[in-house]
Amino acid sequence: MSGQGSAPLKINRLEPKVRQGLTVVITGNGKGKTTSALGMAVRACGHGMRVCIIQFMKGDLYAGEWDGIKLLGEQVELHATGKGFCGILGNPYPWTEHRANAQDAVELARQKMNSGTFDLIILDEINNALKLKLVDLEQVLELVDSKPASMHLVLTGRDAHAEVIERADTVSEIVEVKHAYRKDIEPQPGIDY
Amino acid sequence: MSGQGSAPLKINRLEPKVRQGLTVVITGNGKGKTTSALGMAVRACGHGMRVCIIQFMKGDLYAGEWDGIKLLGEQVELHATGKGFCGILGNPYPWTEHRANAQDAVELARQKMNSGTFDLIILDEINNALKLKLVDLEQVLELVDSKPASMHLVLTGRDAHAEVIERADTVSEIVEVKHAYRKDIEPQPGIDY
Repeated sequence: MSGQGSAPLKINRLEPKVRQGLTVVITGNGKGKTTSALGMAVRACGHGMRVCIIQFMKGDLYAGEWDGIKLLGEQVELHATGKGFCGILGNPYPWTEHRANAQDAVELARQKMNSGTFDLIILDEINNALKLKLVDLEQVLELVDSKPASMHLVLTGRDAHAEVIERADTVSEIVEVKHAYRKDIEPQPGIDY
Repeated sequence: MSGQGSAPLKINRLEPKVRQGLTVVITGNGKGKTTSALGMAVRACGHGMRVCIIQFMKGDLYAGEWDGIKLLGEQVELHATGKGFCGILGNPYPWTEHRANAQDAVELARQKMNSGTFDLIILDEINNALKLKLVDLEQVLELVDSKPASMHLVLTGRDAHAEVIERADTVSEIVEVKHAYRKDIEPQPGIDY
């Protein structure tokens, strides 16, 4: 670039005196929960970390991140599980199937957490799965409480449970100020899915 | 996976009848603004789209996304510009240099927007740069107003200006519920940078 804006004299690098695995909750009704978790995956990959993403209730609807994450290579794996949002209009699957899928996803999360392979595990929409009783509070708290000390754990989805928030280190609530769909703009690839 | 949770009968794919480039604003004081924008980059790459990320006030501090984004390959370019957060304690650069850097970044954004090369442009921390008067409201509005109809534009940073919010299609405010640094936990790689 030209102009008066010269480069910085040096580029600083943070390195915490104590490395600590964090529990992060991203909740709220606004856009940006899953996308924020995907961004943490990018960031973690940049640091050479290994990432596992388990999506709840999302296995039936293609999303760009399924292919986008593949571009990051072998540092990341993504498991899209489930059959869409339980209880929304038009979803054809009975609650028992949603519950069985979510229970499998919890078991998968346990295995991945205990594998020692990952520096960051993202449980996408697990808050919502808990709200819909597809997983139990005790199961989520057990995952949070058994997190290896150096591993980061991210839990996304609206309506995060108070006891999950209580245990987390960092919690963001994403509030919808406005959303394109309220102007009858359909979901757009690259932004909404 | 084992268990009763069978795979969905089919995987649905959304395709909007009308493709429309959106203006998205991610603001607020909570964690997840830049990370959310990075997630949209991943998602867009998955759809084969081309992405340009221009970071304001961030060129002096290494962040994992600088290397993480490289893993996504040639679909994405990231330009980290500037010399850190203007006005925060310990930042050694005068305001005029911050302003010059931000002005260069605006010019770069204009060039990238007019190049016809990108499906998604992310102006990371531009809301904050506007608040700090490193860029002018008229400049930001001109960028928003001159956005090609099919291109997505994402503007992040706290304190988004009301007129920018007014023009946007989707706006999320990320509210800090809690943050690890308030427990004196240092910023951690992979999550915070």
